[in-house]
Amino acid sequence: VPDEYLRTWIGSSTPDRIMIGGRDLAADVMGNMTLTQLAFLLLTRHAPTPGQTRMLDAVLVSLADHGLTPSALAARLTYTGAPESVQGAVAAGLLGAGSVFLGPAGDTALFLAEAIGSAGDRPDLAALAVRLVTARRRAGQRIPGIGHPVHKDADPRTARLYALAAEEGLLGPHLELLGHVADAHDRQAGRHLPVNGAGAAGAALVDVGVPPGSVRGFVLIGRTAGLVAHLAEEQAEPIGMPLWLEAERRSSPE
Amino acid sequence: VPDEYLRTWIGSSTPDRIMIGGRDLAADVMGNMTLTQLAFLLLTRHAPTPGQTRMLDAVLVSLADHGLTPSALAARLTYTGAPESVQGAVAAGLLGAGSVFLGPAGDTALFLAEAIGSAGDRPDLAALAVRLVTARRRAGQRIPGIGHPVHKDADPRTARLYALAAEEGLLGPHLELLGHVADAHDRQAGRHLPVNGAGAAGAALVDVGVPPGSVRGFVLIGRTAGLVAHLAEEQAEPIGMPLWLEAERRSSPE
Amino acid sequence: VPDEYLRTWIGSSTPDRIMIGGRDLAADVMGNMTLTQLAFLLLTRHAPTPGQTRMLDAVLVSLADHGLTPSALAARLTYTGAPESVQGAVAAGLLGAGSVFLGPAGDTALFLAEAIGSAGDRPDLAALAVRLVTARRRAGQRIPGIGHPVHKDADPRTARLYALAAEEGLLGPHLELLGHVADAHDRQAGRHLPVNGAGAAGAALVDVGVPPGSVRGFVLIGRTAGLVAHLAEEQAEPIGMPLWLEAERRSSPE
Amino acid sequence: VPDEYLRTWIGSSTPDRIMIGGRDLAADVMGNMTLTQLAFLLLTRHAPTPGQTRMLDAVLVSLADHGLTPSALAARLTYTGAPESVQGAVAAGLLGAGSVFLGPAGDTALFLAEAIGSAGDRPDLAALAVRLVTARRRAGQRIPGIGHPVHKDADPRTARLYALAAEEGLLGPHLELLGHVADAHDRQAGRHLPVNGAGAAGAALVDVGVPPGSVRGFVLIGRTAGLVAHLAEEQAEPIGMPLWLEAERRSSPE
Repeated sequence: VPDEYLRTWIGSSTPDRIMIGGRDLAADVMGNMTLTQLAFLLLTRHAPTPGQTRMLDAVLVSLADHGLTPSALAARLTYTGAPESVQGAVAAGLLGAGSVFLGPAGDTALFLAEAIGSAGDRPDLAALAVRLVTARRRAGQRIPGIGHPVHKDADPRTARLYALAAEEGLLGPHLELLGHVADAHDRQAGRHLPVNGAGAAGAALVDVGVPPGSVRGFVLIGRTAGLVAHLAEEQAEPIGMPLWLEAERRSSPE
Repeated sequence: VPDEYLRTWIGSSTPDRIMIGGRDLAADVMGNMTLTQLAFLLLTRHAPTPGQTRMLDAVLVSLADHGLTPSALAARLTYTGAPESVQGAVAAGLLGAGSVFLGPAGDTALFLAEAIGSAGDRPDLAALAVRLVTARRRAGQRIPGIGHPVHKDADPRTARLYALAAEEGLLGPHLELLGHVADAHDRQAGRHLPVNGAGAAGAALVDVGVPPGSVRGFVLIGRTAGLVAHLAEEQAEPIGMPLWLEAERRSSPE
Repeated sequence: VPDEYLRTWIGSSTPDRIMIGGRDLAADVMGNMTLTQLAFLLLTRHAPTPGQTRMLDAVLVSLADHGLTPSALAARLTYTGAPESVQGAVAAGLLGAGSVFLGPAGDTALFLAEAIGSAGDRPDLAALAVRLVTARRRAGQRIPGIGHPVHKDADPRTARLYALAAEEGLLGPHLELLGHVADAHDRQAGRHLPVNGAGAAGAALVDVGVPPGSVRGFVLIGRTAGLVAHLAEEQAEPIGMPLWLEAERRSSPE
Repeated sequence: VPDEYLRTWIGSSTPDRIMIGGRDLAADVMGNMTLTQLAFLLLTRHAPTPGQTRMLDAVLVSLADHGLTPSALAARLTYTGAPESVQGAVAAGLLGAGSVFLGPAGDTALFLAEAIGSAGDRPDLAALAVRLVTARRRAGQRIPGIGHPVHKDADPRTARLYALAAEEGLLGPHLELLGHVADAHDRQAGRHLPVNGAGAAGAALVDVGVPPGSVRGFVLIGRTAGLVAHLAEEQAEPIGMPLWLEAERRSSPE
C-alpha cells in the first residue's frame, strides 16, 4: 500500500464540501469557532472549553508584539526591498523567532513537561524544582523560562497569566513547577530572575492541553498578527528605507 | 530631528509595562481580547464589534487550511530537513501564499475597493460590475475573485460568508459588487465561474473594515494556524521523508 | 503514465554514482568546474566558454554585496533571534531581493529581451530605444535598468561590465539596447539617469546566454555569498542586538 | 560613541566607488575574481590560492544538488503558489538545509575542529578518533560526517574530495581525522558507515581555511545554485501543480 502515507487528518475537500478538523468547514466551523479555537482543535483533536479558549487567546495576544524587535525590524526591512510580496516579509519576521526570541516559550514547555513526565505520580513540585535548578546550574546550563533583558524585576505578562489561569481553574502543574523553579533559582543564585512572559506562556499552554512539542509552533500564530500590523504601518510610515540610509551614513568612512 | 522615523504605534515596553495598540497589554488586552480582535485593532486602531469579530474569525478559519496543498507540502518537506527550526517550516509554507494561492483574497479586495473608490457616490453596483468585466475581458485579463480549480460549480465557503455577513448586518458594497461581477462574467462569457472563497473573504474583510492593502497580510494569520497543525502532524506521521523516497524512486532511471 | 511528471534533468543519484547536469559529479564536475560554471550549465544545458565564465563571475561579484543594505540588516537581525539556524538568516536576507533591490536585474533582462524579441530581424536598436522610452514615459511607467539612489551620476559597476563584455566579445544587443535606452531617456527627460549596476548585470547575463526568465534567480547566487559573509561577521561583531536596543530606546516615550 | 557598532568590513559605497572586502569592486574584483574566490575573501580576509580555489569549488559543486530532494521539492511547490517571487521559492528551499540535510557539513566541521583544538600540539589523530568515537557511542550520540541513506557503501563525492585535496597539498588534519573516525566507528560497531559527502565537504573546507563556524553558511552558496536551476526547470516543466493534484487525489476519501 505505497500510497497510504500521503494523507492528513487536518483538512480535505471535494467539489462541494470542505472538511477541517473532522468538521464541515462551512456548516460547522465558519461562524461558530474563532481562529484560536480552530488552532487548538487542529492540534489536539478536540475543541477548547470557554476557559481554555480564554487562556489560549491570552497567551497569543501576550506574544503578538513587543515593539521594534529584531523580528519586526527584519520584516520591515524585507518589505522595503520586496513590497509586492508581503508573505516574504512576514516569513522573514517569523524566521527570527528561534532560540533567543519566542522559541523559549516552546523550550520551557518541553523542559517542564519532560521533568514532570519523568517524576512519577504526584511529584513534590517544589522539590523537583530544586533538583532541576541544581542540575542545570551544575552543568552550567541556562534555566528556561526565567530572566528577561528588559523586564528585570517582573515581566508584566507573567502575573496576569497566573491570575487568569487561577480564575479559569487552569493553573496546573507546569505553571506551578515554573514558579518553583524561579524561586529555587533565586535562593540558589542569590539574585532575582523573574518568570518571563515567554516561559509563563509555554507553561500555560501545556496546562491548557497544547502538546509540549507544538508550543513553539503555536505561538507563531500570535506573532504573525503582530508582524502583519507592522507591515501595514510600514506601508504608511516607512522605517526600512530611512534606517538603510542612516546605516549607510553611519557605516561610511568620512 | 533625525530620530523621529524610528517609532511605532503598535507596541512598546518599559521595564514594568507593555503597551500594545494603545492599551496596557497585561491589564486590558490579556483575558479581554481574542487574537483576532487584537489583529483588527492593530490594523484599524479600533476594536471590532461582536459582529465584526464573528466575520473576521469566519474569514480566518475559512482560509486556514485546504488539505495537502503546495503550501502545506512545502512546510512539511522543510521540516524534514530542519526539524529543529519549526519557524523555518512555517515560513516556507507562508512563502507559497502568493499570486496563485491565498494572494487572490488581497487582490480581490484591492480590485473591488479601487473600483468603488473611483465610482463616485452611491454607484449602481450592477452596472459597475458590467463595466469592470467588459474592460478586463477586452484586455485579456483575469477577473479577481471568481473561479476555482476544485470547486467548479460553487465554493462552499462563499454562500456561508454571504449569509453570515447578512446576519451580522455587514453585507456591504464589496461583497455586493463581487456578486454582480460573477453574474456579469457568466452572462458575458456564457459559462459559469463561482465566486471563490478567497475572493469572498477579501470582499468581506473590506466590508468589515480591514484596509484593502492589508488584506493580503491579514489572511496569513489564518494560514499560519493551518501550517502549525500540519507540522504537528508531520512530527507524528511524516509525509516529507517518504515523499522524498518516492520522488527519488520515480525520478530515477531504471 | 501518471508518474512521468516527477522527474528532473538537473540531478539524480544511485548508490554509487551522482549525476548533475548530465555529467558524473565526482569524475567530471568536481575539480573541473567552478560553481559559476555549473550554475550556467544547469540553466542552459551547456558549459560556458572562458569568456562567458569571466562575465558570469563579474556579474555575480558585482551584486554580492552593497554594505549594510536592508537585505543584509534583515539577515543580521534574524540571526540575532535564531543563531542556531543560519539558513533562516540567509533566507531572510534573500527575501528582500524583490522588486526594489536586485529584482531590477531580472526585470531589465525581461524588458530588453521582450523588446528585442518582438522587433524583428536586425532591429535599429537606437530607434527601438526611443520608442520604448517614449511609450514608458507616456504610460507613466518607470524604465528598468536606469537610475540609482546613491550612484546618481554613474554606477561604477556599469562601465566595468561594458568594458569586460567588449574585451570578451560578448557586448551583445541587450547591453547595447540598454545604453541607447539611457541615452533616449536623458534626451527626452532633460536630466541624467545612469545605467545602474543591476540593469547592466541583467543585460550582460542575457547577452552571455542566461535565459531572461532565469536572471532574477541567477543573481541570488551572488547575493547568498554576501549574506553568508555578513552572518559570519555578525557572529564576531554583532549589529542586531545593539540595533534593537537603540531602536527600543529611540522609539520609547520618555 | 554610540554609533560605532553600525559598521561592516564587507562592503561600502560612495557615489562613485564601491568597496568590497577591502578592494575596489569595479577596478580590482570584477573581471579578476570568481564568486567562489570572493566568498572566501569575505570570510577570511585574504584571497585563496589556486589550489584553495579548486577545493572550494569542488565542495560547492558537490553540494549544489542531489535531485528531487525535500529542499528542491519545497522550492518548486513554493514557486507554484508565488511564481512572481522567485526569491521566496529559493528561500523556501534553503530553509530545509538544517540539521538533517546539508547542515551536517557544518556540524562535522565544528566537531572535528573542536576535537583538534583541544587535543594539544601534534595530536595522534588515529588515537584521537578512537576516543571521540568511544565517547559518542557511550553517550548514545550520532557521529557527525559518516553514514548516508542512499550511498550506503561509499559516497562517490568522498574519495574525489580526498584525492583532490591530496593533489593540491591540502589534505590537512580535519580530513585526516574524519577518515580515522570512520575507521574507528567501523571497528567498534562491527559494521560499515562511509564518510559522507557533506562530512568530507565540511572537513575539506576547514582544511582549506574556512572558519568552522562559517561552514554551515558557506555551503548554502552551492545549494542556491542548484535551487535556481530547479526553479528554471519548474517554469518549463512544472512538478508542483501535478504533485498537488496527485496528493489531493491520494489523500481524499473515496
